[in-house]
Amino acid sequence: MIRAGVIGATGYTGFETVQLLARHPAVELAFVTARSDAGKRVSDLYPVPVDLVFQRLEEVRLADADVLFLALPHAAAADVAVEALAAGCRVIDLSADFRLRDADRYAAWYDHTHPAPHLLSEAVYGLTEWARDEVRHARLVANPGCYPTSILLALAPLLHAGLLQGATIIADSKSGVSGAGRQARIGSLFAEVSENLKPYSIGRRHRHVAEIEQELAALARMAAPAGFIFSPHLLPVTRGILSTIYVPLPESWSAAALRTLYQERYGGEPFVWLLHEGEHATLAHTVRTNRCAISLHSVPEQGQLIIVSTIDNLLKGAAGQAVQNMNVMFSIEETLGL
Amino acid sequence: MIRAGVIGATGYTGFETVQLLARHPAVELAFVTARSDAGKRVSDLYPVPVDLVFQRLEEVRLADADVLFLALPHAAAADVAVEALAAGCRVIDLSADFRLRDADRYAAWYDHTHPAPHLLSEAVYGLTEWARDEVRHARLVANPGCYPTSILLALAPLLHAGLLQGATIIADSKSGVSGAGRQARIGSLFAEVSENLKPYSIGRRHRHVAEIEQELAALARMAAPAGFIFSPHLLPVTRGILSTIYVPLPESWSAAALRTLYQERYGGEPFVWLLHEGEHATLAHTVRTNRCAISLHSVPEQGQLIIVSTIDNLLKGAAGQAVQNMNVMFSIEETLGL
Amino acid sequence: MIRAGVIGATGYTGFETVQLLARHPAVELAFVTARSDAGKRVSDLYPVPVDLVFQRLEEVRLADADVLFLALPHAAAADVAVEALAAGCRVIDLSADFRLRDADRYAAWYDHTHPAPHLLSEAVYGLTEWARDEVRHARLVANPGCYPTSILLALAPLLHAGLLQGATIIADSKSGVSGAGRQARIGSLFAEVSENLKPYSIGRRHRHVAEIEQELAALARMAAPAGFIFSPHLLPVTRGILSTIYVPLPESWSAAALRTLYQERYGGEPFVWLLHEGEHATLAHTVRTNRCAISLHSVPEQGQLIIVSTIDNLLKGAAGQAVQNMNVMFSIEETLGL
Amino acid sequence: MIRAGVIGATGYTGFETVQLLARHPAVELAFVTARSDAGKRVSDLYPVPVDLVFQRLEEVRLADADVLFLALPHAAAADVAVEALAAGCRVIDLSADFRLRDADRYAAWYDHTHPAPHLLSEAVYGLTEWARDEVRHARLVANPGCYPTSILLALAPLLHAGLLQGATIIADSKSGVSGAGRQARIGSLFAEVSENLKPYSIGRRHRHVAEIEQELAALARMAAPAGFIFSPHLLPVTRGILSTIYVPLPESWSAAALRTLYQERYGGEPFVWLLHEGEHATLAHTVRTNRCAISLHSVPEQGQLIIVSTIDNLLKGAAGQAVQNMNVMFSIEETLGL
Repeated sequence: MIRAGVIGATGYTGFETVQLLARHPAVELAFVTARSDAGKRVSDLYPVPVDLVFQRLEEVRLADADVLFLALPHAAAADVAVEALAAGCRVIDLSADFRLRDADRYAAWYDHTHPAPHLLSEAVYGLTEWARDEVRHARLVANPGCYPTSILLALAPLLHAGLLQGATIIADSKSGVSGAGRQARIGSLFAEVSENLKPYSIGRRHRHVAEIEQELAALARMAAPAGFIFSPHLLPVTRGILSTIYVPLPESWSAAALRTLYQERYGGEPFVWLLHEGEHATLAHTVRTNRCAISLHSVPEQGQLIIVSTIDNLLKGAAGQAVQNMNVMFSIEETLGL
Repeated sequence: MIRAGVIGATGYTGFETVQLLARHPAVELAFVTARSDAGKRVSDLYPVPVDLVFQRLEEVRLADADVLFLALPHAAAADVAVEALAAGCRVIDLSADFRLRDADRYAAWYDHTHPAPHLLSEAVYGLTEWARDEVRHARLVANPGCYPTSILLALAPLLHAGLLQGATIIADSKSGVSGAGRQARIGSLFAEVSENLKPYSIGRRHRHVAEIEQELAALARMAAPAGFIFSPHLLPVTRGILSTIYVPLPESWSAAALRTLYQERYGGEPFVWLLHEGEHATLAHTVRTNRCAISLHSVPEQGQLIIVSTIDNLLKGAAGQAVQNMNVMFSIEETLGL
Repeated sequence: MIRAGVIGATGYTGFETVQLLARHPAVELAFVTARSDAGKRVSDLYPVPVDLVFQRLEEVRLADADVLFLALPHAAAADVAVEALAAGCRVIDLSADFRLRDADRYAAWYDHTHPAPHLLSEAVYGLTEWARDEVRHARLVANPGCYPTSILLALAPLLHAGLLQGATIIADSKSGVSGAGRQARIGSLFAEVSENLKPYSIGRRHRHVAEIEQELAALARMAAPAGFIFSPHLLPVTRGILSTIYVPLPESWSAAALRTLYQERYGGEPFVWLLHEGEHATLAHTVRTNRCAISLHSVPEQGQLIIVSTIDNLLKGAAGQAVQNMNVMFSIEETLGL
Repeated sequence: MIRAGVIGATGYTGFETVQLLARHPAVELAFVTARSDAGKRVSDLYPVPVDLVFQRLEEVRLADADVLFLALPHAAAADVAVEALAAGCRVIDLSADFRLRDADRYAAWYDHTHPAPHLLSEAVYGLTEWARDEVRHARLVANPGCYPTSILLALAPLLHAGLLQGATIIADSKSGVSGAGRQARIGSLFAEVSENLKPYSIGRRHRHVAEIEQELAALARMAAPAGFIFSPHLLPVTRGILSTIYVPLPESWSAAALRTLYQERYGGEPFVWLLHEGEHATLAHTVRTNRCAISLHSVPEQGQLIIVSTIDNLLKGAAGQAVQNMNVMFSIEETLGL
């Protein structure tokens, strides 16, 4: 049995991780921690009959866990990661702390010095389908953000084949409100979100943009795209991200050839669902699953390719991919418990 | 033109009042105040093209208004009411401060001494359809709560006719989440409310219970009911209250006779809509209006009468009834601006 | 492996059954049938990567299944049940055809003669927690309705203890819209349901009332309640039923004693979750699970007991309880696959 | 008083028109017609206390109306338009029948021969803000579609200034479900739409595309854009359209200069709301109003301009703009009754 601990388990992401681990057949939950809610039972915060009690981080022995999931605010996560690695745990960090490989860029985007820059080169960016081998041996996995996961999985086959060199990519993304976390904020109230749709940060730099641009370049290797436009919108749903992505149609690639490219790359992937010609990916294809659904739409007369990609932001976009990474790290069946 | 001021205009109730007054043909908005948002424009807080600026209470001259609407937390409201009356304004208080007629009961329910007990006997409980004459001459109107409005309007004809003497009344009420106010609270988040239904305070004493019991007795005069059970539920909707009310079927009253009783009492009321036999009041009958919709359902074989009553909690349950009361107080057409 | 077939698998209930069976570790799906959608893949109708093809009923050999789940309209179900029993299958009927024990009552409520009255005495009403022994040996299980399940599980301990003799019971029930089935009807459109709450059939006889009254009497044995009032409401949610139930507080029973009564009866039940004192059952406690959550609220000063009970109408209220019954019938672990 | 008739008044668009006209101070409703619901009261179909009765088209005398609103399916509308014009009525057609100026293109898109091709050159495309003079004198107004209204108002200042010559325009549009009409369809059920987001017809030709392309060219005159990509998505809301539109940033135009361009064009328009720098248009800015809200987002480092535009699909996108056009046609205040 893998002994797992979850640090910061009271938010939506942390709690989703706890739920997955609690029913994972190869995992034993060593501890779950919380700050302000320490001492409470899980069932005090969430309507589930789980009898675990949240402990304070100071009360637990990190070494009791083989693997630690960090669902903390950024900066706080890096500090715990250092401690955990020292204690011999492997670490899967769901915060943004180890996603950017460059400490200066981190400082610029997150407004403080990185607490553990020496770990940045070691951390593996855990987009599982594209980093399986590195994840397998990683001590420290930076679990990808939710928006980045939906966008990168949709574009990776094109990037990898060098087909987006010099392109401008537009990602019009729509996210459910759980992406904003379990924070008491006016903007996340039912009365503000229901029957509404709210774009935000349109055309502005956004922390996720730094992460996406870095990984677009990494996946494209020598054939990097030239520009990336990201337009996030807040949807009146609890879970799910749908990204509608616009790229130039690669020259002389038919719709069938593109489909084959994706089919070859993703045909054997248990968590990527390439829809049939003529179908559209919807939130319902992936909500409450660890899947990413992708549909391809060529518009040859306009020279455009449109890709629709959906995930559950709390699963493939966070806790689910984290558990998938754990399965890879411990060499057990990748789909176990998912 | 009636000069009106709104104190505490940034919550849902206060803002709804501002919106009604801003387009009321006989009203001129003298000022709207806010505490933490003073200095902002209305359009900074709400997606409406209203160019008003929230002022601090200290900046405005209360005497510039003929009538003041107080949308403040309880206790705070009573203090302003004292000042406003002294300045010669008439006051419509949307808080709970002047709803209970007894200072001791107020202290028991609200956990502090009433700031202005001398005004309690003067305040008129403004359930317009049943207090029109007193409202007309009132200096100080206690605007009824949302749950009480939905329940009292449904029962008043029976109470007034002495038909609920000794009865136990059960009100199973369902409210939209705007009733909880524009407060950043976990329990009001979209992700907590959507696809959920949450009963609360079932069978427990609730502040609204004190208000309802007081008014049930007042409407019934010598023929008071014996018991009142109140079960509120939080609905996944923004606006609206639906109360399903169970009372003993008055003996020897046919369904037709009961309908006539209601028809006689409410037939001329512009804001009470008695549905036809066989129809059911739904939220959609009243949301975004100042109406109360009522449907009657006799079950003679069980000796029960079931009454369904719906209102918009922010309109007939708050701002709408407040403006209706203002219209009565200033002897203008009761439906104006509504 | 249990070989299972699902007849009428395209509605919400039938499809939910298919999903449960498809991932049930002890079940092999022999066939799933549909009428108008025969020939289509499951993934043509639902956004799930299930590769099954719906067959026509005429194409399949019923004897290839050990157990048949019927998710057909009433009357149609009874006909298939006769055939299936003749072919040696055991049958779990999710329609209403075998719920009423009396053919005349059936004819009165469903407006046609019962197609197989000789089977009525054999059919077992499958409220699992209260009929486990009969279910185990049944050839034909009448799977309970969704409203009845939520109400009967809440009341059964009181009924069984003889504490509701002569009582009038009021059930104020609220149901999600999937309860109306996957039918194209104006009343189930998003634009009609969202931001609304619609009571219906208030105080009127309703088919579920006949079923509930029959089972209330059966559970109460010699101490039957005297009256039953049922008020259903359509909620703006997809799944879930919450029933708020009002009964006279049994004389000289303290809140603690009542809780003990429920605890003793339900403490060992895997699918009944008795909430702690002071907690309220909400839809979120049970949606997407096979559980029933129950909270008890005594109001001694009014002589009332209020019970709140929630289930997922498609799981414990339909497909989940059906699979639970199958597990019992085939003597495998009752929670398997649920 | 203007005497108005509404033909086909039972759908969402027709009914919205009826509601606007019923409270319009300068209008008298001459008749409202329906086909299958003829003989019913409005309150039988909608939860509003409107006492009108739907008549059959055959029962009414068209000449009793000065203006006729047609809310019929396409093809049916053209037939009535011919009759109405002959009877001396002015006609505002909310269907698509007179939006395309070319009978062959109509035939290609709508799969039947245009019933009245001789009227196509006379019909005025009623995007009010850009066709006011022609609308004023029109006998026959083709009221624009909902998607086209949101997109054309957003782009018209750029088109008119010749700034989109040769550009490819991408419109990523999200619409509420009332846009699909009051049709009993599986895809519009609450259980299918809630908590979901469904793109459709991505990259495919769509009837609205023909309309939009025609009007983009008309507004641009000699400086037409080269391409138009349209991606509609079905949102889990009842009302509202939000279009996120991507165009090349006009060279050497600063954000401030673009804002001035829009300000000059729309500053005096009562129904176009240009948001401040840094604000984003949301559905809540326009739902239940006749406004279009527009926000501009320049991304100079990527050479992109992003425009967000929202309307209420039933008001500015249908009934509201129709009444606005009526006001213009009868030379009364353009905002009256809106």
